[in-house]
Amino acid sequence: MFVKRTAIRVRYAETDQMGVVYYGNYPQYFEVGRVEALRTLGMSYREMEEGGIMLPVVKLEIQYIRPALYDDLLTIDTRITEMPSTRITFHHEVFNEEKVLLTKGLVQLVFLNRSNRRPCKAPEDFLSKIEPYFSGG
Amino acid sequence: MFVKRTAIRVRYAETDQMGVVYYGNYPQYFEVGRVEALRTLGMSYREMEEGGIMLPVVKLEIQYIRPALYDDLLTIDTRITEMPSTRITFHHEVFNEEKVLLTKGLVQLVFLNRSNRRPCKAPEDFLSKIEPYFSGG
Amino acid sequence: MFVKRTAIRVRYAETDQMGVVYYGNYPQYFEVGRVEALRTLGMSYREMEEGGIMLPVVKLEIQYIRPALYDDLLTIDTRITEMPSTRITFHHEVFNEEKVLLTKGLVQLVFLNRSNRRPCKAPEDFLSKIEPYFSGG
Amino acid sequence: MFVKRTAIRVRYAETDQMGVVYYGNYPQYFEVGRVEALRTLGMSYREMEEGGIMLPVVKLEIQYIRPALYDDLLTIDTRITEMPSTRITFHHEVFNEEKVLLTKGLVQLVFLNRSNRRPCKAPEDFLSKIEPYFSGG
Repeated sequence: MFVKRTAIRVRYAETDQMGVVYYGNYPQYFEVGRVEALRTLGMSYREMEEGGIMLPVVKLEIQYIRPALYDDLLTIDTRITEMPSTRITFHHEVFNEEKVLLTKGLVQLVFLNRSNRRPCKAPEDFLSKIEPYFSGG
Repeated sequence: MFVKRTAIRVRYAETDQMGVVYYGNYPQYFEVGRVEALRTLGMSYREMEEGGIMLPVVKLEIQYIRPALYDDLLTIDTRITEMPSTRITFHHEVFNEEKVLLTKGLVQLVFLNRSNRRPCKAPEDFLSKIEPYFSGG
Repeated sequence: MFVKRTAIRVRYAETDQMGVVYYGNYPQYFEVGRVEALRTLGMSYREMEEGGIMLPVVKLEIQYIRPALYDDLLTIDTRITEMPSTRITFHHEVFNEEKVLLTKGLVQLVFLNRSNRRPCKAPEDFLSKIEPYFSGG
Repeated sequence: MFVKRTAIRVRYAETDQMGVVYYGNYPQYFEVGRVEALRTLGMSYREMEEGGIMLPVVKLEIQYIRPALYDDLLTIDTRITEMPSTRITFHHEVFNEEKVLLTKGLVQLVFLNRSNRRPCKAPEDFLSKIEPYFSGG
């Protein structure tokens, strides 16, 4: 398993008139966690895209447990629990500074060949970088 | 069952550099469908909030089937398939102008008393308005 | 001069914890007014882009007079007051249902050739469509 | 004069199909710069609001010089060039990693008493914290 911890400060723009973070902003937070997870693995999503691979989202699930508030310094824990194939699933947990779990969810993405927009296997260099986290022994 | 159909035009702001609607914008689309569904039932979310009831989201699920494009005139079908109690679930389907299903999902919300922030039953006038859609016979 | 009136319903996502529309959402509203103005002129921004012309924003100015509230049905008046050259300027005014002026501003965009990313003259068919609004007599 | 430098990583959500940061996202970036400038001065916008002072925006001006790209690590320089009275003006400049100026602008806000929603003088403790940056000699 691979885990990456990322910090995000809640922006005023992200609150709504209920005085909490709008439910539709968590996919952005998950995206930040996901991108930083890939960066830690030595992968840049930007380079992957420039190399002809797109990675659209096919599934999103979120449970909202407690609200995040303006200016909260959130922690996003991002986990990859299974070796990716043509798909990759990220599991996210969002905590506030008091380490209270606010939100949890998952995002599943599919590797797409940019030229024909068809699913393809994850790039070899990505697989070789992530493999050590899943090799038993 | 109750169904409401709503139209939404995709904004440029809602696209991303993949050239499609960003996955995190669908919760906003679902919100528009939900609000218009309530309006059709004679309920204003604004009035409900002013009357001391909050309705935070507790669960979100989305499946992404095909992308929506800039300037697409989308149709959001919003369904309430079960009588609400302290919770209410909206089921959403998003279609493009060619009637292709792009996205489907659900949003579950909980009725909260604003003063003590505790779950409460749906307001009586709301229940009386929605009941006719669920009474058999 | 050319004027186009467009209606926009304020989304919950667009409010912030001050209980009003977040100041950073007006550029999106202006965009909707701009796109509908072009559509009325028989121009699709989507087709212009597909035809190799990009239209990035170079200047934005907004004055905030009164707040817009959740669920307000806003009116955006969009004016083109000068014949476009390599640039085009849109003037916007946002009103609520009581016809109170909430916000006014302008957006200036430049016509760019997509292939070399250099400024170019507005497309001929666009100029011929807009010219009648500026010819005196 | 007071200056604060803040870093922001461009999110995928913030790009549009032109492949650059959407023009309407810079107000959010300016907000982050503003909030971090206040924090450096020992002021929390959150506490100011809890203390009964609101700070709505009354004017926004942005010049777009060059585009920001996905995953760019931007620098926001935020300046307060005049002692605040009932208003405060922040000047912002956004640079990319190559130190190219991408965007510049200003945001003017007014101090409002939350109870009567009327303009008021900046809080004394805020003025005393910012004064050293403006005292000549």
